[in-house]
Amino acid sequence: MRVLASPRVPGSLRRAYNTSSLRPHCAPFPKRTHSCGALTAADVGSRVVLTGWLLPERKGGKLLSFFPLKDSLGTTQLVVHHPEVAPNQPSLSDVPVESAVLIEGTVLGRPPAAKRPGPTGDIDVQVDNFILLNPADANLPFFPSNSRNVANEDLRARFRYLDLRRTALSANLRQRSRVAQIVETPVLLRSSPEGAREFLVPTRTVTEDNQPRFFALPQSPQQPKQLLICSGGVDKYFQIAKCFRDEDGRKDRQPEFTQIDLEMAFVSWGEQQASTSAISNVWRIGGTEVRDVIETLIRKIWQDVEGIELPSNFKVMTYYEAMKLYGSDKPDTRFGLKIVDVTEFLPGEQRLAFENRGEVLECLPIRQSNESNFYQTSRRSDVNSPIECIVLTDKNLSIWLTQSSAAGGTAVSETQADCINKNLQLKVGDVIWLCRSPKVPRGGSSPLGQLRLELSELAQSSGKLSLPTEPHFLWITEFPLFTRSDADKEFLAQGRWSSTHHPFTAPMWQDIEALYDGNVEGVRGQHYDLVLNGVEIGGGSVRVHDAAMQDYIFTDVLQLSEQEKSPFSQLLHALQCGAPPHGGIALGFDRLMTILCNTNSIRDVIAFPKTSVGTDLLFKSPATVSERVLVQYGFRPQHRPVHST
Amino acid sequence: MRVLASPRVPGSLRRAYNTSSLRPHCAPFPKRTHSCGALTAADVGSRVVLTGWLLPERKGGKLLSFFPLKDSLGTTQLVVHHPEVAPNQPSLSDVPVESAVLIEGTVLGRPPAAKRPGPTGDIDVQVDNFILLNPADANLPFFPSNSRNVANEDLRARFRYLDLRRTALSANLRQRSRVAQIVETPVLLRSSPEGAREFLVPTRTVTEDNQPRFFALPQSPQQPKQLLICSGGVDKYFQIAKCFRDEDGRKDRQPEFTQIDLEMAFVSWGEQQASTSAISNVWRIGGTEVRDVIETLIRKIWQDVEGIELPSNFKVMTYYEAMKLYGSDKPDTRFGLKIVDVTEFLPGEQRLAFENRGEVLECLPIRQSNESNFYQTSRRSDVNSPIECIVLTDKNLSIWLTQSSAAGGTAVSETQADCINKNLQLKVGDVIWLCRSPKVPRGGSSPLGQLRLELSELAQSSGKLSLPTEPHFLWITEFPLFTRSDADKEFLAQGRWSSTHHPFTAPMWQDIEALYDGNVEGVRGQHYDLVLNGVEIGGGSVRVHDAAMQDYIFTDVLQLSEQEKSPFSQLLHALQCGAPPHGGIALGFDRLMTILCNTNSIRDVIAFPKTSVGTDLLFKSPATVSERVLVQYGFRPQHRPVHST
Repeated sequence: MRVLASPRVPGSLRRAYNTSSLRPHCAPFPKRTHSCGALTAADVGSRVVLTGWLLPERKGGKLLSFFPLKDSLGTTQLVVHHPEVAPNQPSLSDVPVESAVLIEGTVLGRPPAAKRPGPTGDIDVQVDNFILLNPADANLPFFPSNSRNVANEDLRARFRYLDLRRTALSANLRQRSRVAQIVETPVLLRSSPEGAREFLVPTRTVTEDNQPRFFALPQSPQQPKQLLICSGGVDKYFQIAKCFRDEDGRKDRQPEFTQIDLEMAFVSWGEQQASTSAISNVWRIGGTEVRDVIETLIRKIWQDVEGIELPSNFKVMTYYEAMKLYGSDKPDTRFGLKIVDVTEFLPGEQRLAFENRGEVLECLPIRQSNESNFYQTSRRSDVNSPIECIVLTDKNLSIWLTQSSAAGGTAVSETQADCINKNLQLKVGDVIWLCRSPKVPRGGSSPLGQLRLELSELAQSSGKLSLPTEPHFLWITEFPLFTRSDADKEFLAQGRWSSTHHPFTAPMWQDIEALYDGNVEGVRGQHYDLVLNGVEIGGGSVRVHDAAMQDYIFTDVLQLSEQEKSPFSQLLHALQCGAPPHGGIALGFDRLMTILCNTNSIRDVIAFPKTSVGTDLLFKSPATVSERVLVQYGFRPQHRPVHST
Repeated sequence: MRVLASPRVPGSLRRAYNTSSLRPHCAPFPKRTHSCGALTAADVGSRVVLTGWLLPERKGGKLLSFFPLKDSLGTTQLVVHHPEVAPNQPSLSDVPVESAVLIEGTVLGRPPAAKRPGPTGDIDVQVDNFILLNPADANLPFFPSNSRNVANEDLRARFRYLDLRRTALSANLRQRSRVAQIVETPVLLRSSPEGAREFLVPTRTVTEDNQPRFFALPQSPQQPKQLLICSGGVDKYFQIAKCFRDEDGRKDRQPEFTQIDLEMAFVSWGEQQASTSAISNVWRIGGTEVRDVIETLIRKIWQDVEGIELPSNFKVMTYYEAMKLYGSDKPDTRFGLKIVDVTEFLPGEQRLAFENRGEVLECLPIRQSNESNFYQTSRRSDVNSPIECIVLTDKNLSIWLTQSSAAGGTAVSETQADCINKNLQLKVGDVIWLCRSPKVPRGGSSPLGQLRLELSELAQSSGKLSLPTEPHFLWITEFPLFTRSDADKEFLAQGRWSSTHHPFTAPMWQDIEALYDGNVEGVRGQHYDLVLNGVEIGGGSVRVHDAAMQDYIFTDVLQLSEQEKSPFSQLLHALQCGAPPHGGIALGFDRLMTILCNTNSIRDVIAFPKTSVGTDLLFKSPATVSERVLVQYGFRPQHRPVHST
């Protein structure tokens, strides 16, 4: 038996993430062809790829072993012929029980005497190759596949993500989902500081040393849904989930909001080469099943609700390209007006100065001929802006670069200037906007990106520009995994790196070595945002499924203290129990409905919304409660401090 | 034009609840035949019944008026010919704008010149009769149908139930529902004491006099869903709703649980005569549409999930019959063992003594011949039980009634005793259980009802009895509207009457006069419980839609203080704005799944449940939070009292 490695994984990575050392496989792998409950006698002879959890081996002789391979939909018996030669090569026999594995093999029909009733009872799969996707800890608290010896209820409650792998429970959840079409996650959760402020729910219980105990309302069901998929009890999770954020009033944000939330096990990989154009269909990261599900869902919504047929594939752009061309990580591609990097056109000395500063010179040109929609709305002056505005005239056409303060004020010869004007297609009468930007894009938008949107709004409000009516969907991928540029996160990060989205996002496999080498800034994540007409309507990622990598990110990259890490301890342990590679996404349902209903206010699409300052004028909440109740929950109203923000 | 009165309403009620005095109509009315957006040229000539909100009149001459009639699905123009004679009889012209009305009339085709584009643009409906279902207050805060003069946002937020009647908002919610298949209600609500204890959610805001302000998590979305339907913005509401209860640990109760929740406008009436047998199909109260929807839903679930075809109508039993025959308001009808009222068989003097005490003598007979399943498990003695057990022998067969302490110990002649034994089909060797009960059943179960269940469990566990596998669904209707027998409610009621279910349940129209006369005990409500195999899986009711009646119930029956009434002020006002007759139901989804998955524990059908004491061993919640956070929410951990229950 051969250890399977995706042909596109470079050799060095294959060594770094191979299976012989019982490390999780974090690079691309083939897509499964069937679930473990799907194969029948009709498939005999087929080559198949299965994923699932390896159950205990049964020896069929010195050179023959049988393994049940289980997923939430069924069990298939694997047949493994051990080679007489090279007995030391990696073998399924070395893989701990309950590990997540991928196998490639051939479907064999069973001899009549060996046939069993029920699905997959007529076949075996002879294994040729396998990938150990994630080894289970050798010391699991209990074995969910052992139905003869079920652990006690407290132990199973503590390790619910293992218990959910039990066939009986996983069947119950599938039943529940068939009836309600969703799996639900708890609303009463544990407080865990990640980003925005949570709502707390006091209880009438205290710790042994008399500390009050609280639930917290989820900002998103991120941990429960990952734990659910890690359990193996369900293969896919879907929920319309209520989420909560105790934010100080922000325009059009609601303290409770609704997400279309999903998560999937064994998500697989897109194309393994970079695209040649900025906007393409090339999705290089994992999570292609998530992409497919969301595109199908969105297409169905637009078809049913708007009567519009959307294209069969949404466009894809990397974060880098989006920032470079549109100065935004959620570009509105309904109009052009692209940003140009003019650094390469600069004379050598000037170019070098920019390079040394780690900067580039960006230009947003408004050409009288091509960008006439914007031209008439583009003359503005803003003293405090880092942006320089130059109107090209007969007099400055050859010397604007020399005169430009953004460019650095070095002399540029007339020939060079003419060449640049020709490259940028600039003529007398055009307006150009110049701005210095960091060479490596950071954050969600750049000054020229914001200017681009302002110009578009001006052009629209003056009737010069009307945007196309068909929706422009766009995936943005390959975001930087970590950031220091998010003011909202600085409250918790306090000078440390923050996760751009959340700490569970997996790095691109190409950047795993950089991650471990400490080159944090350049590491890109397997994150994807879905953008509609310049509005981010959702985002998700392939998650880290390697416990060691997750711990490294918590401890070495984000430098979380033990106390800060403690709300994630169950996730870390779940990853050690043979968690499958998985990924998911959440769409902002309220925002989506705002667009679908063609209204400006999120309050127009919620039956009973809160005001912009988070109050409810109908139910007159929040409201006071009686002192009798307050005391039970440990409040001391008379000592209450004044509102602090 | 004639004021329409349902032919089955007795004359006195017709006078008491007629429309001329602009009082809401609370008695039966015909079912609507179409929505206001449904009629087309194909319906010309049809007799129709429409329900909706009356918009401002347009005069077409001295004897001719036009009224738009609007519901959430469209608008139909009504044509009213005013009679030359009897001009003082009730007229739609006297009905306030935005009142809920029912009209009966004939569909007229419009002349070509009067046709308008869009649905219902080809037709009018000439009104013959109408019922004023609910008059709108003459001083509405604003008129939602006036699209040219939309009120300011704060006013609309305060009276969201009127704003939701606006066509634009109601279209948004319909769109939202098409996408998510549900309408959602808020989770962050205002605290309102009704039954169980709520979870509070502290905010970082205080009142002007420095009192902390809280949201509360809903025990059920009862008020929001009624307000939604009262608004007229949606015709039907459906949600899989999360509900919360801060209860001290009870077996198999979860602090957060899930309801299948629905509410419908313009629910109409069942049969208006009593049934002749205890178990029947006769549904005498309102809410037949709710019954139909739930039976269809349940039938579909059992068909899809269990592959079982359920009967096309579930059985119906009144609370009175259920208590009399089974000693339970959720009888398990999978086995017989019925209770017999033997008072009528007693000699006159004894019977009179029972009558004077307001009691009856109930008997649970176990006949060796017929109840042999139970016979062998029925011998038990329980000293503290109010139940007397007699084994019939040769010696006591003629004198057991004379000897019985439950019967009162009066001598009964041998002839009388023989006659009673014959009536009860009692023979030597039979076992009978006797118990005195109140003549008017109270509460959810009687001692003999509990004994009946115990005997069934004993018979099952000893293998004597196996229950049928097909599910036994049963509706229980006509519950007492008020109670003093619910210990759980006494905490809030403190000696006053409590609502058996909730204060929004409408009385049966036959009992409205008794309600206003103060005969509270005998008033039956339009409540219905759905019982499956002796387990209550859901309950609901037709709601009070008459603001004056709702206020009377709050103030005069339940004797709520102004402060206790204040959380209901928006509902009272919504009823004054032309709220339609409406009703709904909630099914306990977790309990339903427990039965469908054939498991004993609710925790087996929830992905991440809490333990029986309401803690989460996986996420280790509830948990402490940092003092920095505590202080922001007004907690003083150091002064915290010890856990009080």
